[in-house]
Amino acid sequence: MIVVMKPNATEKQIELVCTQIREMGFQPHPIQGVERTVIGAIGDERGREQLQGLALVEGVEAVIPITKPYKLASRELRKERSVIKVGNLEIGAPQQFVVMAGPCSVESEEQILEAARCVKAAGANILRGGAFKPRTSPYSFQGLEKKGLEMLDTARRKTGLPIVTEVLGAEDLDLIAEHADILQIGARNMQNFQLLKAVGRTRKPVLLKRGMMSTLIELLMSAEYILSQGNPNVILCERGIRTFETQTRNTLDLSAVPVLKQLTHLPVIVDPAHGTGVRSLVPTMSKAAVAAGCDGLMVEVHPHPEHALSDGAQSLNPDEFTKMMQALQPYLALERRSLHSAAAVGA
Amino acid sequence: MIVVMKPNATEKQIELVCTQIREMGFQPHPIQGVERTVIGAIGDERGREQLQGLALVEGVEAVIPITKPYKLASRELRKERSVIKVGNLEIGAPQQFVVMAGPCSVESEEQILEAARCVKAAGANILRGGAFKPRTSPYSFQGLEKKGLEMLDTARRKTGLPIVTEVLGAEDLDLIAEHADILQIGARNMQNFQLLKAVGRTRKPVLLKRGMMSTLIELLMSAEYILSQGNPNVILCERGIRTFETQTRNTLDLSAVPVLKQLTHLPVIVDPAHGTGVRSLVPTMSKAAVAAGCDGLMVEVHPHPEHALSDGAQSLNPDEFTKMMQALQPYLALERRSLHSAAAVGA
Amino acid sequence: MIVVMKPNATEKQIELVCTQIREMGFQPHPIQGVERTVIGAIGDERGREQLQGLALVEGVEAVIPITKPYKLASRELRKERSVIKVGNLEIGAPQQFVVMAGPCSVESEEQILEAARCVKAAGANILRGGAFKPRTSPYSFQGLEKKGLEMLDTARRKTGLPIVTEVLGAEDLDLIAEHADILQIGARNMQNFQLLKAVGRTRKPVLLKRGMMSTLIELLMSAEYILSQGNPNVILCERGIRTFETQTRNTLDLSAVPVLKQLTHLPVIVDPAHGTGVRSLVPTMSKAAVAAGCDGLMVEVHPHPEHALSDGAQSLNPDEFTKMMQALQPYLALERRSLHSAAAVGA
Amino acid sequence: MIVVMKPNATEKQIELVCTQIREMGFQPHPIQGVERTVIGAIGDERGREQLQGLALVEGVEAVIPITKPYKLASRELRKERSVIKVGNLEIGAPQQFVVMAGPCSVESEEQILEAARCVKAAGANILRGGAFKPRTSPYSFQGLEKKGLEMLDTARRKTGLPIVTEVLGAEDLDLIAEHADILQIGARNMQNFQLLKAVGRTRKPVLLKRGMMSTLIELLMSAEYILSQGNPNVILCERGIRTFETQTRNTLDLSAVPVLKQLTHLPVIVDPAHGTGVRSLVPTMSKAAVAAGCDGLMVEVHPHPEHALSDGAQSLNPDEFTKMMQALQPYLALERRSLHSAAAVGA
Repeated sequence: MIVVMKPNATEKQIELVCTQIREMGFQPHPIQGVERTVIGAIGDERGREQLQGLALVEGVEAVIPITKPYKLASRELRKERSVIKVGNLEIGAPQQFVVMAGPCSVESEEQILEAARCVKAAGANILRGGAFKPRTSPYSFQGLEKKGLEMLDTARRKTGLPIVTEVLGAEDLDLIAEHADILQIGARNMQNFQLLKAVGRTRKPVLLKRGMMSTLIELLMSAEYILSQGNPNVILCERGIRTFETQTRNTLDLSAVPVLKQLTHLPVIVDPAHGTGVRSLVPTMSKAAVAAGCDGLMVEVHPHPEHALSDGAQSLNPDEFTKMMQALQPYLALERRSLHSAAAVGA
Repeated sequence: MIVVMKPNATEKQIELVCTQIREMGFQPHPIQGVERTVIGAIGDERGREQLQGLALVEGVEAVIPITKPYKLASRELRKERSVIKVGNLEIGAPQQFVVMAGPCSVESEEQILEAARCVKAAGANILRGGAFKPRTSPYSFQGLEKKGLEMLDTARRKTGLPIVTEVLGAEDLDLIAEHADILQIGARNMQNFQLLKAVGRTRKPVLLKRGMMSTLIELLMSAEYILSQGNPNVILCERGIRTFETQTRNTLDLSAVPVLKQLTHLPVIVDPAHGTGVRSLVPTMSKAAVAAGCDGLMVEVHPHPEHALSDGAQSLNPDEFTKMMQALQPYLALERRSLHSAAAVGA
Repeated sequence: MIVVMKPNATEKQIELVCTQIREMGFQPHPIQGVERTVIGAIGDERGREQLQGLALVEGVEAVIPITKPYKLASRELRKERSVIKVGNLEIGAPQQFVVMAGPCSVESEEQILEAARCVKAAGANILRGGAFKPRTSPYSFQGLEKKGLEMLDTARRKTGLPIVTEVLGAEDLDLIAEHADILQIGARNMQNFQLLKAVGRTRKPVLLKRGMMSTLIELLMSAEYILSQGNPNVILCERGIRTFETQTRNTLDLSAVPVLKQLTHLPVIVDPAHGTGVRSLVPTMSKAAVAAGCDGLMVEVHPHPEHALSDGAQSLNPDEFTKMMQALQPYLALERRSLHSAAAVGA
Repeated sequence: MIVVMKPNATEKQIELVCTQIREMGFQPHPIQGVERTVIGAIGDERGREQLQGLALVEGVEAVIPITKPYKLASRELRKERSVIKVGNLEIGAPQQFVVMAGPCSVESEEQILEAARCVKAAGANILRGGAFKPRTSPYSFQGLEKKGLEMLDTARRKTGLPIVTEVLGAEDLDLIAEHADILQIGARNMQNFQLLKAVGRTRKPVLLKRGMMSTLIELLMSAEYILSQGNPNVILCERGIRTFETQTRNTLDLSAVPVLKQLTHLPVIVDPAHGTGVRSLVPTMSKAAVAAGCDGLMVEVHPHPEHALSDGAQSLNPDEFTKMMQALQPYLALERRSLHSAAAVGA
């Protein structure tokens, strides 16, 4: 249910409604809009009829059911687009665009620094790099873990780029949250509900990747897990789905961008490297993703892809990335978006 | 095998090689390039070693195997892009772009004329409209058949737009070929090999739609059926594949565009209406398709979608289509493409 | 709509109802049951309300709408199972079981005779063999065509086994119908509606294979195309669907058997060779198919699979097939089914 | 690499080889067969050539590479079938069969006791029931957690049935391991590698469900994660994959059973309730699963499915389950398998 407050409702009235919602056994989620405040009342479907009674409370204009299974993520609850702040960047703001670039894995301080400098020079405004790696085989390189995080720290200190890196389990969350600016939930963990709840209890921005087998509604339900724990800072990421086609590793579902834009207020970015698995397709599909209306890109860039410990086949080298970023500019201009350069976070 | 002729090879030498290829039981397919001629020798894999002997023939520079299962469709055989002429349009030419627009079905003369005029006014340069309709149910509207074709004739005469319309079976081919400028093979018939052979025996341009669960290699193999019968005028069309996602009717596989551009010299167009099945997604996905590098679009436009006998939910109305065409212009400009207006064919 | 006649309705009353249905612009499909006759009234959805008026006609008990999009194929219309007679075999009869076995392609008279004799000796009661072959590549072996059909004739004459063979297009239908006892529509042609209509105009039994990309409802709609042309002799065949799994060529969807048994009165058989694409899985999956309740199997058996011109990897050799047939016996016994031996058809 | 010891190799020789493997930086996994011992040497691919040197060590017959990406799970390493002991049950033993039955969720002591008694009476030998529930929506019933585990304890004490229940995250593992006899990893967590490692560090039997869009190789790689941590007690479970078909919730991939039996020595069970999502299909698909050669079934049974808090639509009621178990008996007999009744574990 959404409780829509009158435009002139007082703080006190809003608080009172929140208290009453809580007393009825629901969680209040007040959202302050430009004109008015609306309060989501979230909880068990059963017994939600009693919330209708709030319509009579002072300051309340209407009580409206949210028909979608995702509530806090829905545009029914919130018409304006959510903007997630990372340093001076505003992810999801209509005139901004983010490019998260860097290697699949952090392999050494030298490698991550070289990568960070070159992606920054080319215009990227966030650095990606995995310290904890989800690998299909237990015998593959699993990441440098704590040491990798420290190397990412160094890279941020030296370049000012905020860091996005993956969390594989709740047990590593505190450690990673100390180092990362954005917590990434990988495709294979999209329905790891314990992990979703754990990141939901932080207030860190979360990059939630679509499972390779997950519908867009399931993606939104997973976002809802995070939101319902009180963390509103969720960024969605389309990264390709599994189909029968074999020329590409996955099928990049670009319609996901406009579909999600219709269903949710959360920002949506696209990962064309995992989405296709083929380096030569990344620049073209990045252009197409911009034209599809996404808020940013995540791109794998490695100083020397031929020596990468993981995902070399889909990583751009610095030259390719620089050319791609130049080629994107006029498309970003058509979408009236631009790449702000990141100011050092907490530096 | 490809027989590469020397740059200064004479007509006579080329003819002689063709004769010898024929005598060895293969079909010669000479392709005249800017610098030199290459001759594809196509036939049963067995016994192709003897073709190697042609390397010694005068005027021949080299004999090279084609490694792909599709031969005539491959870029190994032909590096330059194929251009398919339809009236004064050159589909596949790098600076041109085609938009095939119109209703799913021809429903009446009034309807198709109204549709033709409005899509032409908005900039479309080819008229689409089904006279023979493949419908899942035998009890659904199956098209006006011959009468529908005659209405398309009228629409062409009055607007100068060339016509693309679907062929469902070899038995209707002669009739449809009389009326259509481009023969469409629908997704459900992509592996109707008898029909592919039949349209391959004509010289009419063929629009070959990807089956909804066909790989790109299978699409190229189906093109090969047409090419191997002697008809070089094949246009490929991505129109969405079947996946588990339910927010869209199909998943539009835009990576198909750059993948096909790497594998084949044939033009590639995109059908975002069938690809998504949702009207509101068509303009955005059309922009994305342009950015992905396609040679054209096929779009369903109905003067009154709410009364359409088929596919109303994914058809744009004239206003929506006009706005979309305007919005596409700057994206086409970035790709250095423009929409030529069609001159009346045979008029 | 279904018009349910009273148990004691006379022939004349039934005829009268049929005439009235026809006059209202619908096709009557009378189905004589054990207790009573029901008449399907099939046609355009629009205007079907007038059929309700028939409830007042003498001999009519009730007029009931069919809610499914497939009408003649539905169990709403016909509760008893359809039995398709082929010589002395009754496909779909609850105590019978058919095994259609033989090579993918007819390759020579010697080969098809050897195959026919060995599959008969092992207990198969129908001979399969392709004379017209749908091949992904135009350069692959396309079948012996007319000569292949004549070899199948010889095999039937010498073994008494009825023949099932594939029709690729309406243009070959008359020729094939002269030679075949069952017309096979392949997976790639499941939605070749012109071909469905053409075989619907014959009265020959039709084996309709599920498209590798087709839902069960679409399969039933394709059956409806055949039924609605007046041919009630349709046998459905599950042969695997396309998924992301790569250990098998397709994913054999055995749940299709009980689902179809719930939805339709038509017989259902299973093709485990195409369904898995792996020879070593065929015997096990055949057992599982019997346990799932199917009415028969289609199995690829080649006298010398290692020399097969097509599908060798999924064909059993005579020994393997004989062992498999023996292993099936106790499972058939549990299902209270047995394999009748075929008497020479028309011999 | 596998080090194959001579049949007469001594304990001491075996120990020595293990030590040397460890010194080269690999993990030794000795497997004692009937005739001889083989020792898997597992670790980073790089530098495995040095292991070849072991061929010269006394007692060693041969050093053979394992070509599959899964090593410990492969039949290359271990030809005999693994048998997982749970109380007096031997899961995977060729003459035994297990049926894990019970409700989706533990809802109350009364409910789980009623369920336990009726599934035991019908012949089931393991009780399933979820205390921690992975739910798509954060607002759905999430399970009774610790209280649910205690109710499962009571049910075991009163019926003697061992318990299988799901673990959602490493943080709950210790608690659940105290109560459960088999730890279940659900489909959504099949690639939650942290969780796989955590259960791998216990020695509890693990039921690993196939992800709904995971290949069989990926399933084996996930099993490898558990095995490589030292826990050999892994049971695989096919539970349906996601496809385009909508008549069933998932497509039950029964070919997975014989494929897995060829690739791995681990036991394989089937979950027809999740695999189809339709109650009426469960008995038939269970018969088919037995015929496909599985080692057991997991079935949802609820005393009152119409009141179930989750998965009611696919749960059998006690009567249906009893009938199904009776119907399975002759099929089990054909496979020479029988259902041992469980003796109270630790009771």
